[in-house]
Amino acid sequence: MRVGIIAGSGSLPLALASTLTARGQTPFVLLVENEADPADFKEFPHEVIRITKVGRFLKTLARENCTHITLAGPVKRPDLKNLVPDMEGMKLLGRITGAARKGDDGLMRAITGYLKEKGFTVTGAHELAGDLVVPPGQLGKVTPTERDKTDVNEGIRIVKAVGALDIGQGAIIRDGYVLAVEAAEGTDGLLKRSADFAWDVRAGVFVKLSKPGQELKADMPTIGPDTVTLAAAANLRGIAVEAGHTLILDLKEAIRRADAAGIFIIGIDPASPL
Amino acid sequence: MRVGIIAGSGSLPLALASTLTARGQTPFVLLVENEADPADFKEFPHEVIRITKVGRFLKTLARENCTHITLAGPVKRPDLKNLVPDMEGMKLLGRITGAARKGDDGLMRAITGYLKEKGFTVTGAHELAGDLVVPPGQLGKVTPTERDKTDVNEGIRIVKAVGALDIGQGAIIRDGYVLAVEAAEGTDGLLKRSADFAWDVRAGVFVKLSKPGQELKADMPTIGPDTVTLAAAANLRGIAVEAGHTLILDLKEAIRRADAAGIFIIGIDPASPL
Repeated sequence: MRVGIIAGSGSLPLALASTLTARGQTPFVLLVENEADPADFKEFPHEVIRITKVGRFLKTLARENCTHITLAGPVKRPDLKNLVPDMEGMKLLGRITGAARKGDDGLMRAITGYLKEKGFTVTGAHELAGDLVVPPGQLGKVTPTERDKTDVNEGIRIVKAVGALDIGQGAIIRDGYVLAVEAAEGTDGLLKRSADFAWDVRAGVFVKLSKPGQELKADMPTIGPDTVTLAAAANLRGIAVEAGHTLILDLKEAIRRADAAGIFIIGIDPASPL
Repeated sequence: MRVGIIAGSGSLPLALASTLTARGQTPFVLLVENEADPADFKEFPHEVIRITKVGRFLKTLARENCTHITLAGPVKRPDLKNLVPDMEGMKLLGRITGAARKGDDGLMRAITGYLKEKGFTVTGAHELAGDLVVPPGQLGKVTPTERDKTDVNEGIRIVKAVGALDIGQGAIIRDGYVLAVEAAEGTDGLLKRSADFAWDVRAGVFVKLSKPGQELKADMPTIGPDTVTLAAAANLRGIAVEAGHTLILDLKEAIRRADAAGIFIIGIDPASPL
Protein backbone atom coordinates (compact mmCIF):
# COMPACT_ATOMS: atom_id res chain seq x y z
CA MET A 1 0.00 0.00 0.00
CA ARG A 2 1.22 3.47 -0.90
CA VAL A 3 -0.79 6.57 -0.03
CA GLY A 4 -1.27 9.48 -2.43
CA ILE A 5 -2.09 12.66 -0.55
CA ILE A 6 -4.04 15.21 -2.60
CA ALA A 7 -2.99 18.33 -0.77
CA GLY A 8 -5.14 21.43 -0.50
CA SER A 9 -4.31 24.36 1.74
CA GLY A 10 -3.77 24.46 5.49
CA SER A 11 -1.54 22.34 7.72
CA LEU A 12 -3.32 18.98 7.45
CA PRO A 13 -1.51 17.68 4.33
CA LEU A 14 1.90 18.32 5.89
CA ALA A 15 0.86 16.84 9.26
CA LEU A 16 -0.40 13.76 7.46
CA ALA A 17 2.71 13.36 5.30
CA SER A 18 4.89 13.73 8.41
CA THR A 19 2.83 11.24 10.43
CA LEU A 20 2.95 8.61 7.68
CA THR A 21 6.66 9.17 7.05
CA ALA A 22 7.41 8.87 10.78
CA ARG A 23 5.77 5.43 10.59
CA GLY A 24 8.12 4.32 7.82
CA GLN A 25 5.75 4.88 4.90
CA THR A 26 6.57 6.93 1.81
CA PRO A 27 3.45 8.87 0.77
CA PHE A 28 3.37 10.72 -2.54
CA VAL A 29 1.97 14.24 -2.31
CA LEU A 30 0.01 15.80 -5.18
CA LEU A 31 -0.05 19.51 -4.45
CA VAL A 32 -3.08 21.36 -5.77
CA GLU A 33 -1.69 24.42 -7.56
CA ASN A 34 -2.24 27.68 -5.62
CA GLU A 35 -3.46 25.79 -2.56
CA ALA A 36 -0.48 23.90 -1.14
CA ASP A 37 2.98 25.52 -1.00
CA PRO A 38 5.70 23.34 -2.61
CA ALA A 39 8.29 24.82 -0.21
CA ASP A 40 6.52 23.02 2.66
CA PHE A 41 6.89 19.64 1.00
CA LYS A 42 10.58 19.64 0.03
CA GLU A 43 11.27 16.55 2.18
CA PHE A 44 8.52 14.50 0.55
CA PRO A 45 8.14 13.12 -2.98
CA HIS A 46 5.63 15.49 -4.55
CA GLU A 47 4.32 17.14 -7.70
CA VAL A 48 2.26 20.30 -8.29
CA ILE A 49 -0.89 19.78 -10.42
CA ARG A 50 -3.60 22.17 -11.54
CA ILE A 51 -6.97 21.17 -10.07
CA THR A 52 -8.58 20.68 -13.49
CA LYS A 53 -5.94 18.27 -14.74
CA VAL A 54 -7.71 15.19 -13.45
CA GLY A 55 -6.06 12.92 -16.01
CA ARG A 56 -2.68 14.04 -14.73
CA PHE A 57 -3.69 13.31 -11.13
CA LEU A 58 -4.67 9.77 -12.15
CA LYS A 59 -1.51 9.20 -14.22
CA THR A 60 0.74 10.48 -11.45
CA LEU A 61 -0.95 8.31 -8.85
CA ALA A 62 -0.55 5.25 -11.11
CA ARG A 63 3.07 6.08 -11.94
CA GLU A 64 3.87 6.38 -8.24
CA ASN A 65 2.11 3.08 -7.48
CA CYS A 66 -0.34 4.70 -5.10
CA THR A 67 -3.12 2.30 -4.11
CA HIS A 68 -4.77 4.61 -1.55
CA ILE A 69 -5.77 8.25 -1.88
CA THR A 70 -6.57 10.73 0.81
CA LEU A 71 -7.90 14.24 0.22
CA ALA A 72 -6.43 16.62 2.76
CA GLY A 73 -6.97 20.34 3.25
CA PRO A 74 -9.53 22.67 1.71
CA VAL A 75 -9.54 23.61 -1.97
CA LYS A 76 -11.33 26.77 -3.05
CA ARG A 77 -14.11 26.18 -5.52
CA PRO A 78 -12.86 27.17 -8.95
CA ASP A 79 -15.23 28.78 -11.41
CA LEU A 80 -16.04 25.65 -13.40
CA LYS A 81 -17.08 27.70 -16.40
CA ASN A 82 -13.69 29.34 -16.84
CA LEU A 83 -11.28 26.47 -16.58
CA VAL A 84 -9.64 24.28 -19.18
CA PRO A 85 -9.91 20.71 -17.89
CA ASP A 86 -8.15 17.76 -19.51
CA MET A 87 -10.11 14.77 -20.86
CA GLU A 88 -10.61 13.07 -17.49
CA GLY A 89 -11.35 16.48 -16.02
CA MET A 90 -14.19 16.87 -18.54
CA LYS A 91 -15.70 13.53 -17.51
CA LEU A 92 -15.47 14.33 -13.83
CA LEU A 93 -16.79 17.83 -14.44
CA GLY A 94 -19.92 16.45 -16.09
CA ARG A 95 -20.62 14.47 -12.95
CA ILE A 96 -19.80 17.06 -10.34
CA THR A 97 -21.71 19.90 -11.99
CA GLY A 98 -24.91 18.14 -11.00
CA ALA A 99 -23.56 16.97 -7.66
CA ALA A 100 -22.38 20.46 -6.70
CA ARG A 101 -26.00 21.60 -6.66
CA LYS A 102 -26.41 19.25 -3.72
CA GLY A 103 -23.80 21.29 -1.86
CA ASP A 104 -20.27 20.62 -0.71
CA ASP A 105 -21.06 17.19 0.45
CA GLY A 106 -22.62 16.06 -2.81
CA LEU A 107 -19.52 17.37 -4.56
CA MET A 108 -17.14 15.50 -2.26
CA ARG A 109 -19.13 12.27 -2.65
CA ALA A 110 -19.00 12.61 -6.44
CA ILE A 111 -15.22 13.05 -6.35
CA THR A 112 -14.55 10.16 -3.96
CA GLY A 113 -16.97 7.93 -5.92
CA TYR A 114 -15.09 8.74 -9.12
CA LEU A 115 -11.72 7.88 -7.55
CA LYS A 116 -13.11 4.57 -6.27
CA GLU A 117 -14.28 3.67 -9.77
CA LYS A 118 -10.76 4.33 -11.00
CA GLY A 119 -9.59 1.56 -8.65
CA PHE A 120 -8.19 3.58 -5.77
CA THR A 121 -9.06 3.07 -2.12
CA VAL A 122 -10.18 6.42 -0.78
CA THR A 123 -9.16 6.76 2.85
CA GLY A 124 -9.92 9.49 5.34
CA ALA A 125 -7.04 11.24 7.07
CA HIS A 126 -8.57 10.06 10.35
CA GLU A 127 -8.36 6.43 9.22
CA LEU A 128 -4.71 6.81 8.25
CA ALA A 129 -3.69 8.68 11.38
CA GLY A 130 -5.97 7.93 14.32
CA ASP A 131 -3.76 9.91 16.69
CA LEU A 132 -4.92 13.07 14.88
CA VAL A 133 -8.56 12.52 15.95
CA VAL A 134 -9.98 14.59 18.85
CA PRO A 135 -10.90 12.40 21.84
CA PRO A 136 -14.01 13.10 23.95
CA GLY A 137 -13.82 15.29 27.07
CA GLN A 138 -11.71 18.17 28.32
CA LEU A 139 -8.27 18.19 26.69
CA GLY A 140 -6.33 20.84 28.60
CA LYS A 141 -6.27 22.26 32.09
CA VAL A 142 -9.07 24.79 31.68
CA THR A 143 -12.62 23.65 32.53
CA PRO A 144 -15.65 25.33 30.88
CA THR A 145 -17.88 27.26 33.30
CA GLU A 146 -21.66 26.90 33.36
CA ARG A 147 -21.93 30.05 31.23
CA ASP A 148 -19.50 28.50 28.72
CA LYS A 149 -21.52 25.29 28.66
CA THR A 150 -24.68 27.25 27.87
CA ASP A 151 -22.89 28.90 24.94
CA VAL A 152 -21.51 25.55 23.75
CA ASN A 153 -25.01 24.04 23.82
CA GLU A 154 -26.43 26.99 21.89
CA GLY A 155 -23.51 26.56 19.48
CA ILE A 156 -24.43 22.90 18.98
CA ARG A 157 -28.01 23.93 18.13
CA ILE A 158 -26.89 26.61 15.68
CA VAL A 159 -24.11 24.62 13.99
CA LYS A 160 -26.41 21.60 13.56
CA ALA A 161 -28.96 23.88 11.86
CA VAL A 162 -26.49 25.62 9.55
CA GLY A 163 -24.83 22.26 8.86
CA ALA A 164 -28.19 20.83 7.78
CA LEU A 165 -28.40 23.73 5.29
CA ASP A 166 -24.90 22.70 4.05
CA ILE A 167 -23.60 26.17 4.93
CA GLY A 168 -20.69 25.24 7.14
CA GLN A 169 -19.29 23.62 10.26
CA GLY A 170 -18.64 26.31 12.80
CA ALA A 171 -20.00 29.27 14.73
CA ILE A 172 -19.02 31.68 17.48
CA ILE A 173 -21.57 32.12 20.27
CA ARG A 174 -21.25 34.74 23.00
CA ASP A 175 -23.80 34.99 25.80
CA GLY A 176 -26.36 33.14 23.70
CA TYR A 177 -25.86 35.42 20.71
CA VAL A 178 -24.53 34.19 17.33
CA LEU A 179 -21.51 36.35 16.63
CA ALA A 180 -20.36 34.65 13.41
CA VAL A 181 -21.21 31.68 11.21
CA GLU A 182 -18.65 29.87 9.09
CA ALA A 183 -19.22 29.34 5.37
CA ALA A 184 -16.57 29.35 2.62
CA GLU A 185 -14.11 31.55 4.53
CA GLY A 186 -13.12 28.70 6.84
CA THR A 187 -12.25 28.62 10.52
CA ASP A 188 -9.32 31.03 10.36
CA GLY A 189 -11.43 33.67 8.63
CA LEU A 190 -14.22 33.15 11.14
CA LEU A 191 -11.94 33.58 14.14
CA LYS A 192 -10.09 36.55 12.65
CA ARG A 193 -13.26 38.53 12.11
CA SER A 194 -14.55 37.61 15.56
CA ALA A 195 -11.50 39.40 16.98
CA ASP A 196 -13.06 42.63 15.67
CA PHE A 197 -15.93 42.07 18.10
CA ALA A 198 -13.88 40.89 21.05
CA TRP A 199 -14.81 42.25 24.45
CA ASP A 200 -12.16 43.33 26.92
CA VAL A 201 -12.91 40.30 29.05
CA ARG A 202 -12.87 36.82 27.62
CA ALA A 203 -16.30 35.77 26.43
CA GLY A 204 -17.78 33.42 23.88
CA VAL A 205 -16.99 30.01 22.48
CA PHE A 206 -16.09 28.53 19.12
CA VAL A 207 -18.09 25.41 18.24
CA LYS A 208 -17.23 23.17 15.29
CA LEU A 209 -19.11 20.03 14.22
CA SER A 210 -19.14 17.79 11.19
CA LYS A 211 -22.18 18.31 9.00
CA PRO A 212 -24.96 15.71 9.16
CA GLY A 213 -23.96 12.94 6.74
CA GLN A 214 -20.68 14.69 5.87
CA GLU A 215 -18.20 12.67 3.80
CA LEU A 216 -15.50 12.48 6.50
CA LYS A 217 -13.15 10.69 4.15
CA ALA A 218 -12.77 13.85 2.13
CA ASP A 219 -13.52 16.81 4.30
CA MET A 220 -13.15 16.30 8.03
CA PRO A 221 -13.31 19.29 10.37
CA THR A 222 -9.77 20.19 11.43
CA ILE A 223 -8.23 22.41 14.09
CA GLY A 224 -4.68 22.93 15.29
CA PRO A 225 -2.40 25.11 17.40
CA ASP A 226 -3.12 28.12 15.17
CA THR A 227 -6.85 27.71 15.84
CA VAL A 228 -6.06 28.06 19.55
CA THR A 229 -3.95 31.17 18.95
CA LEU A 230 -6.70 32.78 16.85
CA ALA A 231 -9.38 31.89 19.43
CA ALA A 232 -7.24 33.52 22.12
CA ALA A 233 -6.75 36.62 19.93
CA ALA A 234 -10.55 36.80 19.55
CA ASN A 235 -10.70 36.73 23.36
CA LEU A 236 -12.89 33.64 23.35
CA ARG A 237 -13.18 31.42 26.41
CA GLY A 238 -12.77 28.16 24.59
CA ILE A 239 -13.13 25.74 21.72
CA ALA A 240 -15.62 22.86 21.49
CA VAL A 241 -15.22 20.37 18.65
CA GLU A 242 -16.90 17.10 17.82
CA ALA A 243 -14.99 14.20 19.38
CA GLY A 244 -14.18 11.43 16.91
CA HIS A 245 -15.17 13.62 13.96
CA THR A 246 -12.50 16.33 14.13
CA LEU A 247 -8.80 16.20 13.35
CA ILE A 248 -6.40 18.08 15.57
CA LEU A 249 -2.97 18.87 14.19
CA ASP A 250 -0.32 18.66 16.87
CA LEU A 251 -2.55 17.95 19.86
CA LYS A 252 0.28 18.58 22.35
CA GLU A 253 1.12 22.02 21.04
CA ALA A 254 -2.56 22.94 20.79
CA ILE A 255 -3.09 22.01 24.44
CA ARG A 256 0.09 23.82 25.50
CA ARG A 257 -1.13 27.01 23.86
CA ALA A 258 -4.66 26.63 25.25
CA ASP A 259 -3.33 26.15 28.79
CA ALA A 260 -0.97 29.10 28.39
CA ALA A 261 -3.77 31.33 27.09
CA GLY A 262 -6.26 30.09 29.71
CA ILE A 263 -8.85 28.81 27.25
CA PHE A 264 -10.52 25.42 27.16
CA ILE A 265 -10.60 22.79 24.44
CA ILE A 266 -13.26 20.12 24.72
CA GLY A 267 -14.28 17.15 22.58
CA ILE A 268 -18.09 17.04 22.58
CA ASP A 269 -20.84 14.72 21.41
CA PRO A 270 -23.44 16.91 19.66
CA ALA A 271 -26.15 14.41 20.64
CA SER A 272 -25.39 15.05 24.35
CA PRO A 273 -25.22 18.76 25.14
CA LEU A 274 -23.04 19.68 28.15
CA MET B 1 -43.32 66.88 16.85
CA ARG B 2 -39.56 66.78 17.12
CA VAL B 3 -37.57 63.65 16.26
CA GLY B 4 -34.64 62.41 18.32
CA ILE B 5 -32.34 60.23 16.26
CA ILE B 6 -30.31 57.75 18.31
CA ALA B 7 -27.41 57.32 15.94
CA GLY B 8 -25.37 54.12 15.71
CA SER B 9 -22.79 53.51 13.02
CA GLY B 10 -23.18 53.51 9.23
CA SER B 11 -24.73 56.08 6.93
CA LEU B 12 -28.40 55.76 7.92
CA PRO B 13 -28.40 58.30 10.79
CA LEU B 14 -26.89 60.98 8.58
CA ALA B 15 -29.22 60.17 5.66
CA LEU B 16 -32.17 60.40 8.00
CA ALA B 17 -31.06 63.67 9.60
CA SER B 18 -30.51 65.14 6.14
CA THR B 19 -33.88 63.93 4.83
CA LEU B 20 -35.76 65.37 7.80
CA THR B 21 -33.82 68.64 7.68
CA ALA B 22 -34.50 69.00 3.95
CA ARG B 23 -38.21 68.80 4.85
CA GLY B 24 -37.88 71.70 7.26
CA GLN B 25 -37.70 69.69 10.47
CA THR B 26 -34.96 70.05 13.09
CA PRO B 27 -34.10 66.60 14.43
CA PHE B 28 -31.84 66.24 17.46
CA VAL B 29 -29.15 63.59 17.06
CA LEU B 30 -27.89 61.55 20.03
CA LEU B 31 -24.62 60.02 18.88
CA VAL B 32 -23.76 56.71 20.50
CA GLU B 33 -20.14 57.04 21.61
CA ASN B 34 -17.68 55.07 19.42
CA GLU B 35 -20.40 54.28 16.87
CA ALA B 36 -21.33 57.58 15.18
CA ASP B 37 -18.67 60.13 14.23
CA PRO B 38 -19.42 63.64 15.57
CA ALA B 39 -17.58 65.18 12.58
CA ASP B 40 -20.37 63.86 10.32
CA PHE B 41 -23.04 65.70 12.29
CA LYS B 42 -21.58 69.18 12.58
CA GLU B 43 -24.55 70.71 10.72
CA PHE B 44 -27.11 69.16 13.06
CA PRO B 45 -27.89 69.77 16.74
CA HIS B 46 -26.31 66.78 18.44
CA GLU B 47 -24.68 65.33 21.54
CA VAL B 48 -22.40 62.32 22.12
CA ILE B 49 -23.60 59.89 24.82
CA ARG B 50 -22.16 56.64 26.13
CA ILE B 51 -24.54 53.73 25.40
CA THR B 52 -24.93 52.85 29.10
CA LYS B 53 -26.00 56.34 30.14
CA VAL B 54 -29.68 55.71 29.55
CA GLY B 55 -30.72 58.39 32.03
CA ARG B 56 -28.74 60.91 30.04
CA PHE B 57 -30.40 59.83 26.80
CA LEU B 58 -33.81 60.37 28.40
CA LYS B 59 -32.86 63.75 29.93
CA THR B 60 -31.39 65.00 26.68
CA LEU B 61 -34.45 63.94 24.69
CA ALA B 62 -36.71 65.74 27.20
CA ARG B 63 -34.52 68.87 27.27
CA GLU B 64 -34.64 69.03 23.45
CA ASN B 65 -38.44 68.56 23.44
CA CYS B 66 -38.23 65.40 21.36
CA THR B 67 -41.58 63.62 21.16
CA HIS B 68 -40.50 60.94 18.70
CA ILE B 69 -37.46 58.67 18.76
CA THR B 70 -35.94 56.68 15.97
CA LEU B 71 -33.07 54.21 16.37
CA ALA B 72 -30.81 54.36 13.33
CA GLY B 73 -27.69 52.41 12.50
CA PRO B 74 -26.16 49.35 14.18
CA VAL B 75 -24.64 49.46 17.66
CA LYS B 76 -22.17 46.75 18.66
CA ARG B 77 -23.25 44.72 21.66
CA PRO B 78 -21.28 45.91 24.64
CA ASP B 79 -20.18 43.46 27.30
CA LEU B 80 -22.98 44.15 29.75
CA LYS B 81 -20.94 42.80 32.63
CA ASN B 82 -18.16 45.36 32.26
CA LEU B 83 -20.02 48.60 31.89
CA VAL B 84 -20.99 51.24 34.40
CA PRO B 85 -24.59 52.16 33.61
CA ASP B 86 -26.40 55.08 35.23
CA MET B 87 -29.59 54.57 37.26
CA GLU B 88 -31.93 54.34 34.26
CA GLY B 89 -29.32 52.20 32.55
CA MET B 90 -29.49 49.75 35.46
CA LYS B 91 -33.27 49.49 35.15
CA LEU B 92 -33.13 48.94 31.40
CA LEU B 93 -30.26 46.50 31.81
CA GLY B 94 -32.32 44.35 34.15
CA ARG B 95 -34.97 44.04 31.47
CA ILE B 96 -32.76 43.53 28.44
CA THR B 97 -30.53 40.91 30.06
CA GLY B 98 -33.43 38.48 29.87
CA ALA B 99 -34.62 39.76 26.51
CA ALA B 100 -31.17 39.42 24.94
CA ARG B 101 -31.41 35.65 25.43
CA LYS B 102 -34.23 35.79 22.90
CA GLY B 103 -31.77 37.20 20.37
CA ASP B 104 -31.34 40.54 18.69
CA ASP B 105 -34.97 40.95 18.09
CA GLY B 106 -36.00 40.35 21.69
CA LEU B 107 -33.40 42.94 22.70
CA MET B 108 -34.71 45.55 20.27
CA ARG B 109 -38.28 44.97 21.40
CA ALA B 110 -37.26 45.43 25.03
CA ILE B 111 -35.55 48.74 24.21
CA THR B 112 -38.39 50.13 22.10
CA GLY B 113 -40.94 48.97 24.72
CA TYR B 114 -38.97 50.81 27.41
CA LEU B 115 -38.86 54.04 25.39
CA LYS B 116 -42.61 53.84 24.78
CA GLU B 117 -43.25 53.54 28.52
CA LYS B 118 -41.17 56.68 29.02
CA GLY B 119 -43.71 58.50 26.87
CA PHE B 120 -41.90 58.68 23.55
CA THR B 121 -43.32 57.62 20.20
CA VAL B 122 -40.87 55.17 18.69
CA THR B 123 -40.86 55.51 14.92
CA GLY B 124 -39.06 53.48 12.29
CA ALA B 125 -36.75 55.27 9.89
CA HIS B 126 -38.96 53.89 7.09
CA GLU B 127 -42.02 55.58 8.62
CA LEU B 128 -40.23 58.93 8.86
CA ALA B 129 -38.73 58.78 5.40
CA GLY B 130 -40.73 56.59 3.02
CA ASP B 131 -38.57 57.61 0.08
CA LEU B 132 -35.75 55.60 1.68
CA VAL B 133 -37.71 52.32 1.33
CA VAL B 134 -36.79 49.91 -1.50
CA PRO B 135 -39.66 49.51 -4.01
CA PRO B 136 -40.46 46.12 -5.61
CA GLY B 137 -38.91 45.11 -8.93
CA GLN B 138 -35.74 45.83 -10.86
CA LEU B 139 -34.24 49.20 -9.89
CA GLY B 140 -31.46 49.79 -12.41
CA LYS B 141 -30.72 48.89 -16.02
CA VAL B 142 -29.31 45.42 -15.41
CA THR B 143 -31.74 42.46 -15.48
CA PRO B 144 -30.97 39.26 -13.55
CA THR B 145 -30.36 36.19 -15.73
CA GLU B 146 -32.02 32.82 -15.10
CA ARG B 147 -28.84 31.70 -13.31
CA ASP B 148 -28.99 34.81 -11.12
CA LYS B 149 -32.64 34.13 -10.32
CA THR B 150 -31.78 30.59 -9.23
CA ASP B 151 -29.13 31.99 -6.89
CA VAL B 152 -31.54 34.64 -5.56
CA ASN B 153 -34.14 31.97 -4.84
CA GLU B 154 -31.61 29.80 -3.06
CA GLY B 155 -30.56 32.92 -1.15
CA ILE B 156 -34.16 33.49 -0.06
CA ARG B 157 -34.31 29.92 1.26
CA ILE B 158 -31.01 30.26 3.14
CA VAL B 159 -31.60 33.76 4.55
CA LYS B 160 -35.09 32.79 5.73
CA ALA B 161 -33.59 29.83 7.55
CA VAL B 162 -30.72 31.74 9.18
CA GLY B 163 -33.12 34.58 9.96
CA ALA B 164 -35.42 32.14 11.77
CA LEU B 165 -32.39 31.19 13.91
CA ASP B 166 -31.91 34.94 14.63
CA ILE B 167 -28.41 34.76 13.13
CA GLY B 168 -28.64 37.50 10.55
CA GLN B 169 -30.19 39.03 7.47
CA GLY B 170 -27.92 38.32 4.54
CA ALA B 171 -26.02 35.74 2.55
CA ILE B 172 -23.95 35.43 -0.59
CA ILE B 173 -24.89 32.58 -2.93
CA ARG B 174 -22.85 31.58 -5.95
CA ASP B 175 -23.98 28.79 -8.27
CA GLY B 176 -26.22 27.37 -5.57
CA TYR B 177 -23.43 27.36 -3.00
CA VAL B 178 -23.50 29.43 0.21
CA LEU B 179 -20.34 31.52 0.12
CA ALA B 180 -20.96 33.57 3.26
CA VAL B 181 -23.60 34.16 5.92
CA GLU B 182 -24.00 37.45 7.77
CA ALA B 183 -24.04 37.57 11.56
CA ALA B 184 -22.63 40.33 13.79
CA GLU B 185 -20.07 41.56 11.21
CA GLY B 186 -22.78 43.24 9.12
CA THR B 187 -23.19 43.63 5.39
CA ASP B 188 -19.94 45.46 4.73
CA GLY B 189 -17.93 42.76 6.50
CA LEU B 190 -19.82 40.08 4.59
CA LEU B 191 -19.15 41.66 1.20
CA LYS B 192 -15.51 42.44 1.98
CA ARG B 193 -14.67 38.86 2.83
CA SER B 194 -16.58 37.61 -0.20
CA ALA B 195 -14.13 39.59 -2.33
CA ASP B 196 -11.46 37.12 -1.16
CA PHE B 197 -13.39 34.38 -2.97
CA ALA B 198 -14.29 36.34 -6.09
CA TRP B 199 -13.97 34.57 -9.39
CA ASP B 200 -12.46 36.31 -12.42
CA VAL B 201 -15.89 36.47 -14.01
CA ARG B 202 -18.85 37.98 -12.20
CA ALA B 203 -20.78 35.34 -10.29
CA GLY B 204 -23.02 35.14 -7.28
CA VAL B 205 -25.64 37.31 -5.64
CA PHE B 206 -26.11 39.09 -2.34
CA VAL B 207 -29.53 38.51 -0.76
CA LYS B 208 -30.77 40.48 2.24
CA LEU B 209 -34.14 40.04 3.98
CA SER B 210 -35.68 41.20 7.22
CA LYS B 211 -35.85 38.47 9.83
CA PRO B 212 -39.26 36.85 10.47
CA GLY B 213 -41.02 39.08 13.00
CA GLN B 214 -38.14 41.57 13.05
CA GLU B 215 -38.75 44.87 14.87
CA LEU B 216 -38.47 47.08 11.79
CA LYS B 217 -38.87 50.19 13.89
CA ALA B 218 -35.47 49.61 15.41
CA ASP B 219 -33.41 47.55 13.07
CA MET B 220 -34.43 47.63 9.44
CA PRO B 221 -32.13 46.12 6.81
CA THR B 222 -30.27 48.92 5.05
CA ILE B 223 -28.16 49.19 1.91
CA GLY B 224 -26.65 52.12 0.05
CA PRO B 225 -24.22 53.17 -2.66
CA ASP B 226 -21.31 51.66 -0.72
CA THR B 227 -23.10 48.30 -0.67
CA VAL B 228 -23.13 48.46 -4.46
CA THR B 229 -19.44 49.33 -4.62
CA LEU B 230 -18.54 46.46 -2.27
CA ALA B 231 -20.73 44.01 -4.21
CA ALA B 232 -18.97 45.06 -7.42
CA ALA B 233 -15.56 44.62 -5.73
CA ALA B 234 -16.64 41.11 -4.70
CA ASN B 235 -17.42 40.52 -8.39
CA LEU B 236 -21.03 39.64 -7.65
CA ARG B 237 -23.71 39.82 -10.31
CA GLY B 238 -26.26 41.62 -8.23
CA ILE B 239 -28.11 42.54 -5.08
CA ALA B 240 -31.58 41.33 -4.07
CA VAL B 241 -33.25 42.95 -1.06
CA GLU B 242 -36.70 42.72 0.43
CA ALA B 243 -38.98 45.36 -1.10
CA GLY B 244 -40.82 47.43 1.50
CA HIS B 245 -38.64 46.07 4.30
CA THR B 246 -35.25 47.50 3.34
CA LEU B 247 -33.94 51.06 3.48
CA ILE B 248 -31.77 52.31 0.66
CA LEU B 249 -29.60 55.34 1.31
CA ASP B 250 -29.33 57.54 -1.75
CA LEU B 251 -31.29 55.38 -4.20
CA LYS B 252 -30.17 57.47 -7.20
CA GLU B 253 -26.48 57.14 -6.48
CA ALA B 254 -26.87 53.42 -5.67
CA ILE B 255 -28.53 52.83 -9.06
CA ARG B 256 -25.94 54.98 -10.85
CA ARG B 257 -23.14 52.86 -9.41
CA ALA B 258 -24.95 49.58 -10.12
CA ASP B 259 -25.55 50.56 -13.74
CA ALA B 260 -21.95 51.69 -14.12
CA ALA B 261 -20.64 48.44 -12.63
CA GLY B 262 -23.10 46.29 -14.61
CA ILE B 263 -24.75 44.69 -11.61
CA PHE B 264 -28.44 44.39 -10.81
CA ILE B 265 -30.43 45.63 -7.82
CA ILE B 266 -33.86 44.13 -7.32
CA GLY B 267 -36.58 44.54 -4.70
CA ILE B 268 -37.98 41.08 -4.01
CA ASP B 269 -40.88 39.53 -2.11
CA PRO B 270 -39.46 36.54 -0.21
CA ALA B 271 -42.87 34.85 -0.40
CA SER B 272 -42.67 34.87 -4.22
CA PRO B 273 -39.32 33.56 -5.47
CA LEU B 274 -38.25 34.87 -8.91
